[in-house]
Amino acid sequence: MLVVMRHNARPEDIQAVVATIKDMGYDARPIPGGHRTAVGIIGNDGRVDSARLEGLEGVLEVIPVTQPYKQVSREWREAETLVRFPNGTCIGGNEVVVMAGPCSVESEGQILDIAHQLRSLGVAVLRGGAFKPRTSPYAFQGLGMKGLELLARAREATGMMIVTEALDAEGASAVAEYADMIQIGTRNMQNYALLRRAGRLGKPVLLKRGMSATIDELLLAAEYILAEGNDDVVLCERGVRSFDTHTRNLLDLSAIPVVKGLSHLPIVADPSHGTGIRSMVTPMARAAVAAGADGILVEVHPDPPRALSDGAQSLYPAQFAELMQQIRVIANSIGRKLNEPLGSSTRG
Amino acid sequence: MLVVMRHNARPEDIQAVVATIKDMGYDARPIPGGHRTAVGIIGNDGRVDSARLEGLEGVLEVIPVTQPYKQVSREWREAETLVRFPNGTCIGGNEVVVMAGPCSVESEGQILDIAHQLRSLGVAVLRGGAFKPRTSPYAFQGLGMKGLELLARAREATGMMIVTEALDAEGASAVAEYADMIQIGTRNMQNYALLRRAGRLGKPVLLKRGMSATIDELLLAAEYILAEGNDDVVLCERGVRSFDTHTRNLLDLSAIPVVKGLSHLPIVADPSHGTGIRSMVTPMARAAVAAGADGILVEVHPDPPRALSDGAQSLYPAQFAELMQQIRVIANSIGRKLNEPLGSSTRG
Amino acid sequence: MLVVMRHNARPEDIQAVVATIKDMGYDARPIPGGHRTAVGIIGNDGRVDSARLEGLEGVLEVIPVTQPYKQVSREWREAETLVRFPNGTCIGGNEVVVMAGPCSVESEGQILDIAHQLRSLGVAVLRGGAFKPRTSPYAFQGLGMKGLELLARAREATGMMIVTEALDAEGASAVAEYADMIQIGTRNMQNYALLRRAGRLGKPVLLKRGMSATIDELLLAAEYILAEGNDDVVLCERGVRSFDTHTRNLLDLSAIPVVKGLSHLPIVADPSHGTGIRSMVTPMARAAVAAGADGILVEVHPDPPRALSDGAQSLYPAQFAELMQQIRVIANSIGRKLNEPLGSSTRG
Amino acid sequence: MLVVMRHNARPEDIQAVVATIKDMGYDARPIPGGHRTAVGIIGNDGRVDSARLEGLEGVLEVIPVTQPYKQVSREWREAETLVRFPNGTCIGGNEVVVMAGPCSVESEGQILDIAHQLRSLGVAVLRGGAFKPRTSPYAFQGLGMKGLELLARAREATGMMIVTEALDAEGASAVAEYADMIQIGTRNMQNYALLRRAGRLGKPVLLKRGMSATIDELLLAAEYILAEGNDDVVLCERGVRSFDTHTRNLLDLSAIPVVKGLSHLPIVADPSHGTGIRSMVTPMARAAVAAGADGILVEVHPDPPRALSDGAQSLYPAQFAELMQQIRVIANSIGRKLNEPLGSSTRG
Repeated sequence: MLVVMRHNARPEDIQAVVATIKDMGYDARPIPGGHRTAVGIIGNDGRVDSARLEGLEGVLEVIPVTQPYKQVSREWREAETLVRFPNGTCIGGNEVVVMAGPCSVESEGQILDIAHQLRSLGVAVLRGGAFKPRTSPYAFQGLGMKGLELLARAREATGMMIVTEALDAEGASAVAEYADMIQIGTRNMQNYALLRRAGRLGKPVLLKRGMSATIDELLLAAEYILAEGNDDVVLCERGVRSFDTHTRNLLDLSAIPVVKGLSHLPIVADPSHGTGIRSMVTPMARAAVAAGADGILVEVHPDPPRALSDGAQSLYPAQFAELMQQIRVIANSIGRKLNEPLGSSTRG
Repeated sequence: MLVVMRHNARPEDIQAVVATIKDMGYDARPIPGGHRTAVGIIGNDGRVDSARLEGLEGVLEVIPVTQPYKQVSREWREAETLVRFPNGTCIGGNEVVVMAGPCSVESEGQILDIAHQLRSLGVAVLRGGAFKPRTSPYAFQGLGMKGLELLARAREATGMMIVTEALDAEGASAVAEYADMIQIGTRNMQNYALLRRAGRLGKPVLLKRGMSATIDELLLAAEYILAEGNDDVVLCERGVRSFDTHTRNLLDLSAIPVVKGLSHLPIVADPSHGTGIRSMVTPMARAAVAAGADGILVEVHPDPPRALSDGAQSLYPAQFAELMQQIRVIANSIGRKLNEPLGSSTRG
Repeated sequence: MLVVMRHNARPEDIQAVVATIKDMGYDARPIPGGHRTAVGIIGNDGRVDSARLEGLEGVLEVIPVTQPYKQVSREWREAETLVRFPNGTCIGGNEVVVMAGPCSVESEGQILDIAHQLRSLGVAVLRGGAFKPRTSPYAFQGLGMKGLELLARAREATGMMIVTEALDAEGASAVAEYADMIQIGTRNMQNYALLRRAGRLGKPVLLKRGMSATIDELLLAAEYILAEGNDDVVLCERGVRSFDTHTRNLLDLSAIPVVKGLSHLPIVADPSHGTGIRSMVTPMARAAVAAGADGILVEVHPDPPRALSDGAQSLYPAQFAELMQQIRVIANSIGRKLNEPLGSSTRG
Repeated sequence: MLVVMRHNARPEDIQAVVATIKDMGYDARPIPGGHRTAVGIIGNDGRVDSARLEGLEGVLEVIPVTQPYKQVSREWREAETLVRFPNGTCIGGNEVVVMAGPCSVESEGQILDIAHQLRSLGVAVLRGGAFKPRTSPYAFQGLGMKGLELLARAREATGMMIVTEALDAEGASAVAEYADMIQIGTRNMQNYALLRRAGRLGKPVLLKRGMSATIDELLLAAEYILAEGNDDVVLCERGVRSFDTHTRNLLDLSAIPVVKGLSHLPIVADPSHGTGIRSMVTPMARAAVAAGADGILVEVHPDPPRALSDGAQSLYPAQFAELMQQIRVIANSIGRKLNEPLGSSTRG
């Protein structure tokens, strides 16, 4: 951390900064320059609270030099984290993992129908919401526990792994019991009670980026989970808030190479929520794979116009089948391949 | 709600839209125009899920005409909501209510010291964090239950009302027991489990705007609380995410007149979190009152350089005293006055 | 256009809206609903100025239904615009066009060296700045006219087409004389004097999206050029302002499918300015092609560490060669191919 | 400037950084730390181009320590810049200067009528557009030279100073001939040809912040004008792009205290464009004065519903009169007063 002094800071201001740093338990090194002095903080572990320094006389700004996170950092662990599942799927390695399914679990028929269709296309991870966070209190809130049971039934029937969202600490325990990966949604990225609980349940966690979270904040949220002893975290870019109203969110694909540089954790993209518009899901899903995503999360519904939620952004099964063919080629163009441990009827 | 068709939409596309609207239980009215046809939805109550329509052939866009919220709307209730407290303070009426105190409760000495100082300046509501949501898992997380007890002691000693944050549903019950107003922080604005719980605890709720929440989303979050039967909600603008790095957030004071136009709920501003910089708290606090805020939330610490959190944005007591004098005049300039039910030693 | 009335609007308010619309020369159609009345404007051509209506008593909001632009719209012209160049390159058709070169023209040796290298890799359009818009008045501002001459010399030597930026109306004439496509940069997207001049010079225009321009504003800026009689406009997504500081801008690839839906104009992406970081240029260039871009604009420098501007985001020639191979496969995966009219030594 | 190395940077990487800095003509000082080494750049004047360093092996990031601007900085000149006008008005001192008038000059009757009304309310600076930058090529573009003549006539008739916008370098010369202050609009904040010309015309310049310009970019744009020898620059906050659609822009009042800390230049606010909605102009104008603005720019029209542009955000004269009374009190509350050199009939 570097404390930059104003050009007219007095010697006693600099002394006060040095004294405060020492009082905080670190060592201080003043660095005189042509225009101004800066004071380096030595011996810290990246977790210095800068607030105390920012308010001192003569201080222009406090610049963090060390990253604020630790265990999620690639400097902490160089090798990629591989998140492995019982059915052979592995997120974070050379394979690109497709997770697909409806926005919400609506009925046994619906979820089994789509699960079988997806499996026949080579998909090994099924997504589907049982607990739905909705902006309006009057919108459909999901089937709850019943939805979890139906997802478990789809797993039995197909061998697919299940990922579904938990909305609070109690719900996380239920999800951990039925599902193979606990999803923490964008609205809960900084729900620390939920992050901590998810860190203690022994199941991989899919952590979605908050609607306007910086990448550092996303990594710090993941740090909460790792700090509880759970290293199996998959990050997910799902669109950030922006000023254009043509799409629901702005899918920030540059987050993929940025995260790859900073962290060893895998990162996937969700082009369905990231755009909110069916016709844009396919191009942005392809783009995510081309940008180096470790996987994608795609909403597919057997009958989108009758979906109880997010119908406008759900692909028809036939559109999804075409997407699978395209991303298989794109993955190959960068030396990767699609994860298809359960086999696929569409491959020649 | 208005479904706008593409200019080349076919008659059968329009028919499909009409049929879908009827299938959803509403009435449809096609409105032919020069360039295109639009289809109005009649008989809906503002809660139509547009997704099903957006995905239909020939649809250009679906425009919500009715507002998505209901009980929080000024169309639902014209008169201002007045949130009343046992010590005579009332938020939402003609008085501007100042809520002040340290970021975190740190010790009995600290909280009693500042409470007495603030009370002597006329402040009737004490803020202070017991449970602290922190971006980093390694930062100080607050005194927890012990903090609540110390806040209650400060209330006994001064007669001030207490507002403090709850981080999850369980914590909300504890806060409701000790405090006079439950604060829901910016990171939890869409934590629906917490919103619902807060709606059932019989205490006023201070709901902070999410870091990139639209005003409609803020009002929808409040709707979750009102839908549980609790009308005593005070909204709080506390800065939104923006692209400039000179301030921690961008305090959106225009939210104040916008909310006043849309809703009957009171709205206050938090210039401390809204700027993150001590020297900007005073000008922005004045601006908030000038813009018509029903109150302000200000961090004041007896010794900011030694604060355990947010020291850089906490005012010194003397700075706060000067602010009180300035906003007293500003409130008068627009026909309001400061809430000072407990008396003030600084008034002449 | 739809004028939505407040739920408590009086009949005379609605009458005033109807009268104002008629006074503006259009026809008005009131549409009564359950909660409120809306008034449709009939017979307009999409260019109604809503300001006069927004301020009337009882008006809640004015919703544009018709798009604000006209000639750029896909409703105005269904077929893709094809922008053709003398050397056979065509932007907007089935081929993906790569435009590459250094940020600035620095010397004859530099520009000829890189032009020959790029041509040998199959690139048919050379980019390079002669007039540089710089945030600081003290930064290198380009070689000016001398730079234009060097670019023309590179064209003679290689057969490549030249695209370079004009900063003002006079400069545009000079650029039109020497180059094959006039670039209008992000800072000048709404410099209407420049747009109009560029529309009258008879050369294709590459129009970059402003740093926080909405897609509608980008299309309206293009409309200024088409309104002068020049249909040969290529749009360029180059990153928008966002809140994360890890990249210089946020490359908004979703703009590509959005523009494709709204307009017949071609759209390319600039991953170099869009990220500002060399290691991210390749993944984002691939992603742009996968998302359906009609081309990409990439900075390549023979010796990036010694570049006079933007060295940190320039690819080394070897990195660029690898990128070409990857995007050739990606273009094929979606049924397109790379534009390589001049031949390429790397194709097998 | 500080070059932060990756924790695993090799000694030869650090050597390469040091060598590059020396090659650039500066001195380098490596600062070893617990986790990583940083390299300080000594002897630079704040104008180092970091791009060359950012791309080197082992470099994590390059952190600017010195500010990128110079003459606009408060470190360059401590005392406030006072921009003085012939009629006694002075911007940047203790007085708060109100600049008011219609969006566009529409006719002699209109401009003289409103000028007389405003003058009788104590306003000494008249604003009004002759050249209008419009997002759509089909919207009213202003009266041009005729508008400048009408403004000059209003000056003769009332003694008020005139501020009006120039759209390009040629127009700036015309504006400088007729008006007392040249306005550079938000779309042209980085139109460097225009900035340079405005810097050479010998008239004060009102420089509006770009729609998504950071404060550093605003100051750098002003630096272009000062670099030409013109110190009389007044900055103007007029709202930045944000994600909420209830207002046209987000008026960033925190820019006022931020600019006051960084620069000696005066800063005013434009609540009319900053909100776009008549009912919000008054509260935000009050808030701007309370936040410490050196002045405000307000649109007032004798008959807003018939305005040719921006009618929805123009105040009625009676609303403006009330605003003047309120801000007179608010200015007093912070030890300032309103600029009223021409006298005012409303002061009692």
